[in-house]
Amino acid sequence: MDASPNAGQEELLRELTDRFLAGCDEIGTIHRLGRSPLPSADAVVEIARDLQELLFPGYRQREAPRRDDVARHVAESIGRLLAKLCEQFRRALTHDEELSAASRDDIASSISADSDLADRARHQAVRFLEQLPGIRAVLASDVRMAFDGDPAARSHDEIVCCYPGFEAVTIHRVAHAMQRLGVPLVPRMLAEWAHGRTGIDIHPGATIGPSFFIDHGTGVVIGETCEIAARVKLYQGVTLGAISFEKDAQGNIIRGRKRHPTIHEGVVIYANATVLGGKTVVGRNSVIGAGVALNRSVPPNTIVTLEKPQLRFREAA
Amino acid sequence: MDASPNAGQEELLRELTDRFLAGCDEIGTIHRLGRSPLPSADAVVEIARDLQELLFPGYRQREAPRRDDVARHVAESIGRLLAKLCEQFRRALTHDEELSAASRDDIASSISADSDLADRARHQAVRFLEQLPGIRAVLASDVRMAFDGDPAARSHDEIVCCYPGFEAVTIHRVAHAMQRLGVPLVPRMLAEWAHGRTGIDIHPGATIGPSFFIDHGTGVVIGETCEIAARVKLYQGVTLGAISFEKDAQGNIIRGRKRHPTIHEGVVIYANATVLGGKTVVGRNSVIGAGVALNRSVPPNTIVTLEKPQLRFREAA
Amino acid sequence: MDASPNAGQEELLRELTDRFLAGCDEIGTIHRLGRSPLPSADAVVEIARDLQELLFPGYRQREAPRRDDVARHVAESIGRLLAKLCEQFRRALTHDEELSAASRDDIASSISADSDLADRARHQAVRFLEQLPGIRAVLASDVRMAFDGDPAARSHDEIVCCYPGFEAVTIHRVAHAMQRLGVPLVPRMLAEWAHGRTGIDIHPGATIGPSFFIDHGTGVVIGETCEIAARVKLYQGVTLGAISFEKDAQGNIIRGRKRHPTIHEGVVIYANATVLGGKTVVGRNSVIGAGVALNRSVPPNTIVTLEKPQLRFREAA
Repeated sequence: MDASPNAGQEELLRELTDRFLAGCDEIGTIHRLGRSPLPSADAVVEIARDLQELLFPGYRQREAPRRDDVARHVAESIGRLLAKLCEQFRRALTHDEELSAASRDDIASSISADSDLADRARHQAVRFLEQLPGIRAVLASDVRMAFDGDPAARSHDEIVCCYPGFEAVTIHRVAHAMQRLGVPLVPRMLAEWAHGRTGIDIHPGATIGPSFFIDHGTGVVIGETCEIAARVKLYQGVTLGAISFEKDAQGNIIRGRKRHPTIHEGVVIYANATVLGGKTVVGRNSVIGAGVALNRSVPPNTIVTLEKPQLRFREAA
Repeated sequence: MDASPNAGQEELLRELTDRFLAGCDEIGTIHRLGRSPLPSADAVVEIARDLQELLFPGYRQREAPRRDDVARHVAESIGRLLAKLCEQFRRALTHDEELSAASRDDIASSISADSDLADRARHQAVRFLEQLPGIRAVLASDVRMAFDGDPAARSHDEIVCCYPGFEAVTIHRVAHAMQRLGVPLVPRMLAEWAHGRTGIDIHPGATIGPSFFIDHGTGVVIGETCEIAARVKLYQGVTLGAISFEKDAQGNIIRGRKRHPTIHEGVVIYANATVLGGKTVVGRNSVIGAGVALNRSVPPNTIVTLEKPQLRFREAA
Repeated sequence: MDASPNAGQEELLRELTDRFLAGCDEIGTIHRLGRSPLPSADAVVEIARDLQELLFPGYRQREAPRRDDVARHVAESIGRLLAKLCEQFRRALTHDEELSAASRDDIASSISADSDLADRARHQAVRFLEQLPGIRAVLASDVRMAFDGDPAARSHDEIVCCYPGFEAVTIHRVAHAMQRLGVPLVPRMLAEWAHGRTGIDIHPGATIGPSFFIDHGTGVVIGETCEIAARVKLYQGVTLGAISFEKDAQGNIIRGRKRHPTIHEGVVIYANATVLGGKTVVGRNSVIGAGVALNRSVPPNTIVTLEKPQLRFREAA
């Protein structure tokens, strides 16, 4: 291809375009040309921001609203959210149907009518919005736990407006509620938006009890099948992960099995500790020290730390 | 609640709104309805970006300004910043007064007049802007340190425009200056903005000497009461943290004590090392190896590494 | 300086401005006044987003385009990208020439004519765009690898639209292609944009084979001189880094040497493992366990884990 400035611009662009499109045809995947639109990444981010504003009235606005404006403001927010949720949930359900049909080699006959999918999406959206008061009650317990557990916190308000651990847990609680209602894809998109903003990666499938606190948070990973009870505290860099993946007779990985640990009430897990495995249970009020790598269960009320004489001291040359 | 598409949209929204507001009344916290506005998250981000542009003239603009335009450009930037800082500092001071009054159960009588708070905010904003030349001098030392310490750096300019460690330290130096002037909340909001962008979490209370360099940086945590001397270098995943928190007779956590380590001149701390505790002192020119977890002091000129025979090698099945 | 509200606003701003500019003159560095404009950070972000949209047609738009619109759409995208790449590459080449000239103390005579630099920039931009189909083929292999290796993945589409590891690798593959064409600075700016969004820091100089997968990803660091073969999988917090830096006779760090490890085909490296050193080679199909810190070579088909009896269990008080 002639890249010199003398080469015709039009011809150059045509050649580059033809080459690009030939490559698309050859590869066949990683494009969605002529297929149904996925949930829009931008719309999902708007939903996340709208939910943050709705869940914490008066925190994220430029001006705190007056209490007597609030009913109108909440009604408007909920109305806008309902419309956005219906649209994005419908796209996700359509995509999911296409996937299932494709895996059955049976596309044409089995996709539900568009109007059925729209009804299901609306049903999920309303059921989700009904849960917001309950989610707020749990988030209030998370703020109290954060304040009681962090000497650097000056007020509850500081936690709501600054703490990335609280932001990640907020988004997790809404994403998890959507996931339980059977909404495909959107929960994961929300989770990854929060992951990008906070460095905290919580799979929307993870079950997390009230009064949960992640301090600092960057590098935390909580896997899909984790079960975390009430009053658990994690620090930065903690992984609650899987050990290895079972495969079926065809050598394909088996999806959906319990692969991640169970953490009982009152457990504290310090920075950069790794707890692995679906059969691993950390008992009530136990403490896992910084940097510990654990893949077996721990009884209640146990402190697990690194052995001391692991370090070597020598004089610098 | 009737989520079917036949249900009246108005009635549905009214029900969802009523349920949401009833929840707000019940919980009582995590809203700021009818209260003074907090510093605006968006405005704080604008302040951060304005400061970055002002501190590094010609780097972040689409076009590098000509030197003779620069006086006018700087005057305008400072004027705009002054107005924004006055407004956000005033909000933060108002919020802080309300908190103190609430903790004394004595709200009505003790909050300063609005005009007093505005005067204090203006005073802090001017004192802060006066410090910018001094902050730039320290940042210039940080850039030199980064260049001398990273073989992958091609130029000082690359560090200013690309290095997240330098961005996090820039925001820390301005946030710390605000904190020392007694500005509440805004320093923490700035710190968490930088944390979100870089994965580097430096509490605005931490004291950091000149020629400081964080390479790569994601996962670094530097606690509120850290003291770090000149020419210190940290790598990704390093935690300078607290061991445990003292509580008072009522079982409440005690805030404000020295809980984080002291790092002397010329120390290097490699990836994912953890140094914990308010009494821990790492002596001059010592080196803490990758993955080391340390909660006791280290004399000067000492290399601390993990013991070698900690690994197990076996053949894969 | 009089910070009281009675002080004249104009005089105050003039004093603050004069003080700031005096500081700039004194320090001399960290400004680019009167010098050529660097590549614009905003323009580089636009390039990154345009490339993402072009590489995965139909994923990131609000509406998936119809296949018959696609040729026009691709031609327009490529045209816009070409213009942006030419401008930013030209700026980067100009800056690079200035740096080289400055290091030879020979500025005036040696900078190429503007038109030469514009021609070189255009040449690089066209050569880069020609490589996009090849880059897409490799990215398709990355998506398959991610799907086959993660039981939490429901579809290829989920990986393209949600996985930060895939986003970081996408940006790396384009940044690396630019770097190989000799484009200065822009590849690093792209890499740091991806680093900020994902917590994954891949130097654009690193060589990475097809079918590469980073799961979760936050805290991953891959150094400039790493060589990674096909079918390698990394987890969050993995560092492929340098041990120490060689210096020349003047005590200046030597840039450009192989300082980072070589990873052979089929290797898996689990969470928070650290592999260091330019002579370190991890052999084919070996597995490095979570938390392992390694600075020597490992033969093929070897599993390296932490020794078991490193933990201490005791009852909580």
